Amino acid sequence: MKLLLVNANTNTFVTDTVAAAARKCASPGTEILAVTSPFGAPIIESRAEHAIGTYATLALVAEHSEGCDAVIIAVSYDTGLAGARELLSIPVVGMTEAALLTACMLGGRIGIVSFGRRVAPLYRELVASYGLTDRVGGWRVIESAAPYRPGGRDGIRPEIATQARDLIEKDGAEVIVVTGAVMAGMQADLQPELPVPVLDGITSGIAQAELLVRLGLKKAETGSYAPPGPRDLVNVTDAVSRAFAQA
Amino acid sequence: MKLLLVNANTNTFVTDTVAAAARKCASPGTEILAVTSPFGAPIIESRAEHAIGTYATLALVAEHSEGCDAVIIAVSYDTGLAGARELLSIPVVGMTEAALLTACMLGGRIGIVSFGRRVAPLYRELVASYGLTDRVGGWRVIESAAPYRPGGRDGIRPEIATQARDLIEKDGAEVIVVTGAVMAGMQADLQPELPVPVLDGITSGIAQAELLVRLGLKKAETGSYAPPGPRDLVNVTDAVSRAFAQA
Amino acid sequence: MKLLLVNANTNTFVTDTVAAAARKCASPGTEILAVTSPFGAPIIESRAEHAIGTYATLALVAEHSEGCDAVIIAVSYDTGLAGARELLSIPVVGMTEAALLTACMLGGRIGIVSFGRRVAPLYRELVASYGLTDRVGGWRVIESAAPYRPGGRDGIRPEIATQARDLIEKDGAEVIVVTGAVMAGMQADLQPELPVPVLDGITSGIAQAELLVRLGLKKAETGSYAPPGPRDLVNVTDAVSRAFAQA
Amino acid sequence: MKLLLVNANTNTFVTDTVAAAARKCASPGTEILAVTSPFGAPIIESRAEHAIGTYATLALVAEHSEGCDAVIIAVSYDTGLAGARELLSIPVVGMTEAALLTACMLGGRIGIVSFGRRVAPLYRELVASYGLTDRVGGWRVIESAAPYRPGGRDGIRPEIATQARDLIEKDGAEVIVVTGAVMAGMQADLQPELPVPVLDGITSGIAQAELLVRLGLKKAETGSYAPPGPRDLVNVTDAVSRAFAQA
Amino acid sequence: MKLLLVNANTNTFVTDTVAAAARKCASPGTEILAVTSPFGAPIIESRAEHAIGTYATLALVAEHSEGCDAVIIAVSYDTGLAGARELLSIPVVGMTEAALLTACMLGGRIGIVSFGRRVAPLYRELVASYGLTDRVGGWRVIESAAPYRPGGRDGIRPEIATQARDLIEKDGAEVIVVTGAVMAGMQADLQPELPVPVLDGITSGIAQAELLVRLGLKKAETGSYAPPGPRDLVNVTDAVSRAFAQA
Amino acid sequence: MKLLLVNANTNTFVTDTVAAAARKCASPGTEILAVTSPFGAPIIESRAEHAIGTYATLALVAEHSEGCDAVIIAVSYDTGLAGARELLSIPVVGMTEAALLTACMLGGRIGIVSFGRRVAPLYRELVASYGLTDRVGGWRVIESAAPYRPGGRDGIRPEIATQARDLIEKDGAEVIVVTGAVMAGMQADLQPELPVPVLDGITSGIAQAELLVRLGLKKAETGSYAPPGPRDLVNVTDAVSRAFAQA
Repeated sequence: MKLLLVNANTNTFVTDTVAAAARKCASPGTEILAVTSPFGAPIIESRAEHAIGTYATLALVAEHSEGCDAVIIAVSYDTGLAGARELLSIPVVGMTEAALLTACMLGGRIGIVSFGRRVAPLYRELVASYGLTDRVGGWRVIESAAPYRPGGRDGIRPEIATQARDLIEKDGAEVIVVTGAVMAGMQADLQPELPVPVLDGITSGIAQAELLVRLGLKKAETGSYAPPGPRDLVNVTDAVSRAFAQA
Repeated sequence: MKLLLVNANTNTFVTDTVAAAARKCASPGTEILAVTSPFGAPIIESRAEHAIGTYATLALVAEHSEGCDAVIIAVSYDTGLAGARELLSIPVVGMTEAALLTACMLGGRIGIVSFGRRVAPLYRELVASYGLTDRVGGWRVIESAAPYRPGGRDGIRPEIATQARDLIEKDGAEVIVVTGAVMAGMQADLQPELPVPVLDGITSGIAQAELLVRLGLKKAETGSYAPPGPRDLVNVTDAVSRAFAQA
Repeated sequence: MKLLLVNANTNTFVTDTVAAAARKCASPGTEILAVTSPFGAPIIESRAEHAIGTYATLALVAEHSEGCDAVIIAVSYDTGLAGARELLSIPVVGMTEAALLTACMLGGRIGIVSFGRRVAPLYRELVASYGLTDRVGGWRVIESAAPYRPGGRDGIRPEIATQARDLIEKDGAEVIVVTGAVMAGMQADLQPELPVPVLDGITSGIAQAELLVRLGLKKAETGSYAPPGPRDLVNVTDAVSRAFAQA
Repeated sequence: MKLLLVNANTNTFVTDTVAAAARKCASPGTEILAVTSPFGAPIIESRAEHAIGTYATLALVAEHSEGCDAVIIAVSYDTGLAGARELLSIPVVGMTEAALLTACMLGGRIGIVSFGRRVAPLYRELVASYGLTDRVGGWRVIESAAPYRPGGRDGIRPEIATQARDLIEKDGAEVIVVTGAVMAGMQADLQPELPVPVLDGITSGIAQAELLVRLGLKKAETGSYAPPGPRDLVNVTDAVSRAFAQA
Repeated sequence: MKLLLVNANTNTFVTDTVAAAARKCASPGTEILAVTSPFGAPIIESRAEHAIGTYATLALVAEHSEGCDAVIIAVSYDTGLAGARELLSIPVVGMTEAALLTACMLGGRIGIVSFGRRVAPLYRELVASYGLTDRVGGWRVIESAAPYRPGGRDGIRPEIATQARDLIEKDGAEVIVVTGAVMAGMQADLQPELPVPVLDGITSGIAQAELLVRLGLKKAETGSYAPPGPRDLVNVTDAVSRAFAQA
Repeated sequence: MKLLLVNANTNTFVTDTVAAAARKCASPGTEILAVTSPFGAPIIESRAEHAIGTYATLALVAEHSEGCDAVIIAVSYDTGLAGARELLSIPVVGMTEAALLTACMLGGRIGIVSFGRRVAPLYRELVASYGLTDRVGGWRVIESAAPYRPGGRDGIRPEIATQARDLIEKDGAEVIVVTGAVMAGMQADLQPELPVPVLDGITSGIAQAELLVRLGLKKAETGSYAPPGPRDLVNVTDAVSRAFAQA
């Protein structure tokens, strides 16, 4: 099985981190292809950068999905998920979507630890768009850019654990989701420190993508996720034009 | 990996059907143990039978889960799910819960085909208890006992397909969930006839249970899903007493 | 009028407390029959014990409801309510359901005081299952086993009053519901200390059960609360078999 | 016990109908005082008339509630309920509120039969204001002024039963609520014709008002339902001024 | 264009304050007519006074709306809005409704600063009645009667700004709505002190009313906002009778 | 005042139609600048094209908003709204958002007429993202490409009117919103044929944009709509880079 990890950011450090974690948690025999956007923001930290990333995701999957069995959106706003899911004939999974849905099988209320106050509303809106608002029991936001520096991830782990324990004690969270593509694989490190199950988006995303591949379902032929079909697109990348034509 | 399929009904035909389908869709090397309740109703078709089944599930998992890696509730009301999830140290997945959560990654609105008008409200309440009401776009109910007769399942397939297509056309369903433990594995047969992804609970349940085992998460140590611990239970089966004591 | 109070716990101290309170608050001429489960947990404090209690309730009402005019579930998770309501031809009322619905006529937001952090999520889920989440303005949880010791109830009253006042002052609660079967009749003691109406489940449950008896409504003949009718039940108590046969 | 039935309409035929039904369904020894507004509309059939009726209810309860033990709003939009509940030191119950809350104990989804397409949105808004939207499974509207003519009520009964059966069959209603003050007591006549419990607002309202009186709760001393206290009101009836002064 | 500002209170200080602010923020050429209720409460501070005000609004618009192009309800509970909107052939806008809807275009979660703990639930219910509960991210209540004293408004401004900043910092409010008719025009003074957009109801109400006038839409001819038509009203003001007759 | 109309499609016929309508409905003195995307789809009819359009909107506003006072998104999925609103220091309004919010002041339940079954879910999701799902009472979808052909718009008008009347009669819609940028100004033509207010997105969008300009509010300085500030963007248009740098 071959999985495509799509990083709509331009930062290859994140892509590398994600890819390394993905290779570690994927099933034996699963090949990981991780790609980085050639345009846009190093790290999406605003709605405007998210807007650029929405197109970047589409361009990336159009370019790189051939020969892959499924796609994981490796940006924790699940940037570009809906368009990619529609366009491709293979399963497409959002990393945060995957973590949230997996969490639903592990406890009652979900506690979410995210990074950056500024983008906290984007996560709320994302959860709401999945219809999962009522499953979330609490939020904690960490203000730090450390995870995006090599080695910085380990330094921030104690703070994540502290916030997670606070969610468990004060908000009654029974399962923890840690957002952030750069947190890929963090669940293995955090789990021993926490008294409830903890998930990161990439570990969940890889697992759910593999699951969907194994289920072998048909691509939708009707509805809003059916392939859009050929269009007279103007000034888009060749890959994008081709992807529509094939869809 | 060894999975326990729990049928809180007393009907072994259903257990056998479920087990056969489970063995077919499980990963290579996954062993399936399917157990049937020694008490209660042949098929749960009422709230009162569901109440008996709630305890039957608990008794079954207490008796048979040792040595297993995860449990799938093989009754489509997910009968006894919460109690079993709490009591055991291994993952427990409801078959309908698993189908619904998997469906969330495959399209927008979910269309549900269930059996028996009388129990239709139980499914609505189940969906609501998962907080997924807004994800469901339509319901169709088939009034037939045929699936519970040997060979009857194939006869009902055209009617399921008809109802599913109606959901797709009239209610805008973009993914179909077929309820009923006895429908185990039906997705493979139905998928060619439908223009959108279709899921049955057992296929989804096996897949999600395997996924949770692979994630290797910690059992909750606090909250409402932590082990209840030893209790002075009276007149319950030895296995139930033991399960609490170990939990 | 004769009312059946069903305690799905095995603890007779709770049953006696409930029965005494019920006799005090019932209308003149109302006879109270209070029964205790012969199996299960002394006090339900976990989801698994709740699962046992779900069946215990069914067994108890099957055994003891003959000749009664209505049933009150005397466990504050309303354990087994739906099954009992369906099975019997007489009204069945949950004690917490009754308190919540009564509270709706007495103010805006309801404040709930419950016992035990571990089971707090069960109350939230119960309230949600009644569709009343938006009516609840706040929760307070008291961590104490005192109420289950003879004489312990009075000792805990100041703490209940303190928590209730906190709900009123900080969360804008305009009516208070105190959960816990063992708190039966507590509203009479608490009311003088609180500046808004306060309800306990047994007092409300007795009152609403009497009300439903007086309304003289027909048992549902169709839908998910119609009698299930005879079933080929296996290894259940004789009373349960008989109750299905008569239903 | 003495109950005040408040008809914010000017039509005494409705008041008389309501009073007669109330006397029939009230407990022995309960005295019924039914009053009619001296101003406003004969029958509230618009939002503007409802606005007049909101004040009429306040004026009526200020004038007539002295010596009464509880009030029932005998207009099925529960016109003026919140203001009257706040102002008076005795319980105030809305007829539709009472029917809806009572219905919650009798089945799953409630089916509502109302009169007049034009005012149908007012009922929806009323149900939403009680937070009960999710409990309602279907609506039917009858377009007829017959009930407001002497003898007309019986003529419309078959149509009500037809609509109720349609709600049961098509929308899965498991309990029926019939709105309209003029339908007071109709549940006794309709019940034999319907296969699920049926409620009218006045029968439920009388019963719930009696229940609240028996519970003997304290009037709120704080919050938005505490007495408003004396105010410098201008050009309102003496009774209204007095009621504020006493509150 | 001529706009009618309706103050259902009897306090002319509020009316004058509102009128002055309205004249300042209205478009050039817009004439403002501000009227005060001849009956009811100086300032609505309770549900009962709100009930009186509901009728007062109707009486005021019936008396004064002739020749006007739109109406703004200048009481921040939007007292009497629905009835007035139905009765008149010109647009009617609630001041708080207008501020909330305008706020929806300016950010994510709305923070609301209101006055008086006692009436805080009325604002919550108002927001819920508009279906906008999920848009509101936080509430702050100021306990002060100062704004209703000449010159008192300026004194309270620092406290409003403090509460608004608290909403922004702690609750993530991205736009602020300040309630209270007497706060008319306050947005101009507060805006420089706050880091997000701030709205008051009168400024928004004037603007939205002018907008609706310019859109030149048809008065509803059907549905619950169509004119009620002539009615046999009893003992209402001549203006009210006339308004129904013309409607 | 100068308003920028942003068409993220490449079809200039739509831009011209929108611009013509905008000039007609804008206030005297308001200048309209309408721009078309140099890349993407002629008409967005899929989620993937919407993803491209999200970036196109950002690129267009970065290029053309200088000197403008507000922006109207002239694609009826409000494509790119959030990013543009954040990036720019002037108000940005979505055409469908504006129509929905305006509709809230004109009646109870909103009826929506849209074009194309395939994209119907996008409209539902858009309404949900605004928190307005409960305000919408019904949907009708017209399957026709006619509006995108010169002169085709008039031909489709009778069908729109028919669907709108159906919404009014069957679903109780009290105000109608017609989606589709190409329907700009259609409300003037449709209004005479319909018995309730009708809105199109461009007319509402122009009006609400003018309103926001007149309110003169401050650009958010904090929160998720504050300017993102300079970023190290790669391979985006110069205008986009510049817009971030200035923001």
